[in-house]
Amino acid sequence: MVITRKVEFSASHVCRNPDLSDEENERLFGLAANPHGHGHNYVVEVSLRGKPDAVTGMVLDLKELKEILTREIVEPYDHRFLNYEVPPFDKIVPTTENIARDIWRRLEPRLTAEDRQLHAVRVWETPDLYVDYFGETPCST
Amino acid sequence: MVITRKVEFSASHVCRNPDLSDEENERLFGLAANPHGHGHNYVVEVSLRGKPDAVTGMVLDLKELKEILTREIVEPYDHRFLNYEVPPFDKIVPTTENIARDIWRRLEPRLTAEDRQLHAVRVWETPDLYVDYFGETPCST
Amino acid sequence: MVITRKVEFSASHVCRNPDLSDEENERLFGLAANPHGHGHNYVVEVSLRGKPDAVTGMVLDLKELKEILTREIVEPYDHRFLNYEVPPFDKIVPTTENIARDIWRRLEPRLTAEDRQLHAVRVWETPDLYVDYFGETPCST
Amino acid sequence: MVITRKVEFSASHVCRNPDLSDEENERLFGLAANPHGHGHNYVVEVSLRGKPDAVTGMVLDLKELKEILTREIVEPYDHRFLNYEVPPFDKIVPTTENIARDIWRRLEPRLTAEDRQLHAVRVWETPDLYVDYFGETPCST
Amino acid sequence: MVITRKVEFSASHVCRNPDLSDEENERLFGLAANPHGHGHNYVVEVSLRGKPDAVTGMVLDLKELKEILTREIVEPYDHRFLNYEVPPFDKIVPTTENIARDIWRRLEPRLTAEDRQLHAVRVWETPDLYVDYFGETPCST
Amino acid sequence: MVITRKVEFSASHVCRNPDLSDEENERLFGLAANPHGHGHNYVVEVSLRGKPDAVTGMVLDLKELKEILTREIVEPYDHRFLNYEVPPFDKIVPTTENIARDIWRRLEPRLTAEDRQLHAVRVWETPDLYVDYFGETPCST
Repeated sequence: MVITRKVEFSASHVCRNPDLSDEENERLFGLAANPHGHGHNYVVEVSLRGKPDAVTGMVLDLKELKEILTREIVEPYDHRFLNYEVPPFDKIVPTTENIARDIWRRLEPRLTAEDRQLHAVRVWETPDLYVDYFGETPCST
Repeated sequence: MVITRKVEFSASHVCRNPDLSDEENERLFGLAANPHGHGHNYVVEVSLRGKPDAVTGMVLDLKELKEILTREIVEPYDHRFLNYEVPPFDKIVPTTENIARDIWRRLEPRLTAEDRQLHAVRVWETPDLYVDYFGETPCST
Repeated sequence: MVITRKVEFSASHVCRNPDLSDEENERLFGLAANPHGHGHNYVVEVSLRGKPDAVTGMVLDLKELKEILTREIVEPYDHRFLNYEVPPFDKIVPTTENIARDIWRRLEPRLTAEDRQLHAVRVWETPDLYVDYFGETPCST
Repeated sequence: MVITRKVEFSASHVCRNPDLSDEENERLFGLAANPHGHGHNYVVEVSLRGKPDAVTGMVLDLKELKEILTREIVEPYDHRFLNYEVPPFDKIVPTTENIARDIWRRLEPRLTAEDRQLHAVRVWETPDLYVDYFGETPCST
Repeated sequence: MVITRKVEFSASHVCRNPDLSDEENERLFGLAANPHGHGHNYVVEVSLRGKPDAVTGMVLDLKELKEILTREIVEPYDHRFLNYEVPPFDKIVPTTENIARDIWRRLEPRLTAEDRQLHAVRVWETPDLYVDYFGETPCST
Repeated sequence: MVITRKVEFSASHVCRNPDLSDEENERLFGLAANPHGHGHNYVVEVSLRGKPDAVTGMVLDLKELKEILTREIVEPYDHRFLNYEVPPFDKIVPTTENIARDIWRRLEPRLTAEDRQLHAVRVWETPDLYVDYFGETPCST
């Protein structure tokens, strides 16, 4: 069984690879390479796989889940300019793909336990674009 | 190919395990253990896996699917207090996880046939929380 | 200028007028008169009319607005059975119309000030049904 | 990692199999067999599986993806009567299932490359009904 | 107080004025003038203004409202090609504006009564475009 | 009759009044005063009031409306840091209220004509917060 909870944050980013020239960045990322940055209301769906506890009927206490998501995602990301304020985005481009990976990296040690595991992280950049990440397992590259 | 249809119902529940004390229930479920209950507009997505029929181009006649979902889910659940009026929730806690399992139990014998099978039941308790259940197969518990 | 903010709460209600017989209640309210009650995820939109402050560019500080809505609406209503736990719904039927009026009554003294006034309260009972209330002014009865 | 992008188009269709009689079509498809046709705002979600490029952090350049979806889906389908104007729907019934398959057929050669592959096509006919197609692989038929 | 209920229907239309030439229609309406037609999932929001009844707490019985909307809007419009099957669209162009007016014309005599009146009809053609009509009163042209 | 069309843009802003100290800005705007800025997917609904043309059945040609909104709103705002790149936000705080006013200022001369007028501008900063602006008329402050 998989339980999924949404959280949201607002942040700025600029799609630039610091190892490339301005021209190269603009060619690769277009308007998104504008060095002043631009922003989004990101929506994150975190999915946890496990068996509901026989007594509580829950995979994980929802209050506990919400606290973890607030502490590990919303607090470090919300109202931040990702490239300047949230490592590792000083070194890698904060595309939606890389944001999903970083959220997985932050949550996996907090959520995976003996009887449950982090299953997926979905990040919506806009209502028309989202990325799903399932960790570095062979079948989900 | 997987075809999915949504239905909705409004219901009350209280998150209490009758085998536990009031204090224990409140510690586990917080506000949701309030014995008067509270309610939600639940949204259910039922997914069916199969091959479209060569003549009709459909996995299952949508009118027939809608009738089954209305009879098996909406009629027993809608406008009910789950703990008091909808077994098995007199005995087990009506968490979203357990509701998804009960909906699977009700639908599976009605929907699985020679050339198609129930694939998933998704239950949204609020727009920010949902559960996916795929049956008791080894890889999806 | 009008600024609007949404909040949500989950609650149970039963549509019964205690002055009427069971038969009469069932005739008037159908399934919604089921005495065990049923529930909804209510969404409330609160609209405030005013002129943005010349210095802050805001009609009202959003943090302050959110605190007022949490204290005056979410805390008394969320996870409650309205008829039994939230006056005046021990005496009047908690239809969406009456909920909108009660929310107006709770918010109006907290939000109307010299340079701004409560403009509208919209209450969604389901994604297909909502009520707008503008106070007891002659033109908005 | 899987990246998904939505596009929309408006189209008409009639659910009729030209090899069947009018009576048989009406029995199978009901109102949807009305020969004048009826229409929908279709929403299509196209999912691509791959590894983000180490330099750009992207599975596929989003501008390029959008151009492909516009050229291969929106341009041929938008504002068309599918049965009369968009092959193969002169020969097969344009059910949501068959539309999803046809979109896969159109996109697969344009999107699958050495380091990425088309993963899924989801077609929403209405906000309550959608189909997922994963290609003709053994485990997803 | 204003109560609003949504209903949906799927229909085809073509934006053509039969008094104009093909070239003129194409110049005015572009792709929407394609004579085969195209379709939409229309969403209609019907708003009724009145005072809640002192006993029932309702402006109008919701079951009765739903029956009226089904009979007067959904049944004549759903799964129809508006220009060919739904007068007056044999004579006037079925733009969203004209559809809103026609729905007002159909509903007004059924909904306006001594103590309540039809207040507004909102028609969504797509999730990005809608029209509001308030009748032919001086202030709402 | 009122016709409304949505457009979207993504932008960054920081809520700071350049005439105030850092401490004062942080006290007034909290996290939103973070000088690196943060961002949103803004949604704008533009409403035009008029009478549908007797021949075309339209208040304004939708293609023309879309071009105006793209040129006057999306192009100057999208993927920009409002405070640094979009006047007048070098001088006034880009709150949602002030953005709505600026969009009105940009659109009003392009949309108001003999037989129609700009009626309202709604700006959504997040799915939970929006502002409506009706111009500087006496009754809509």
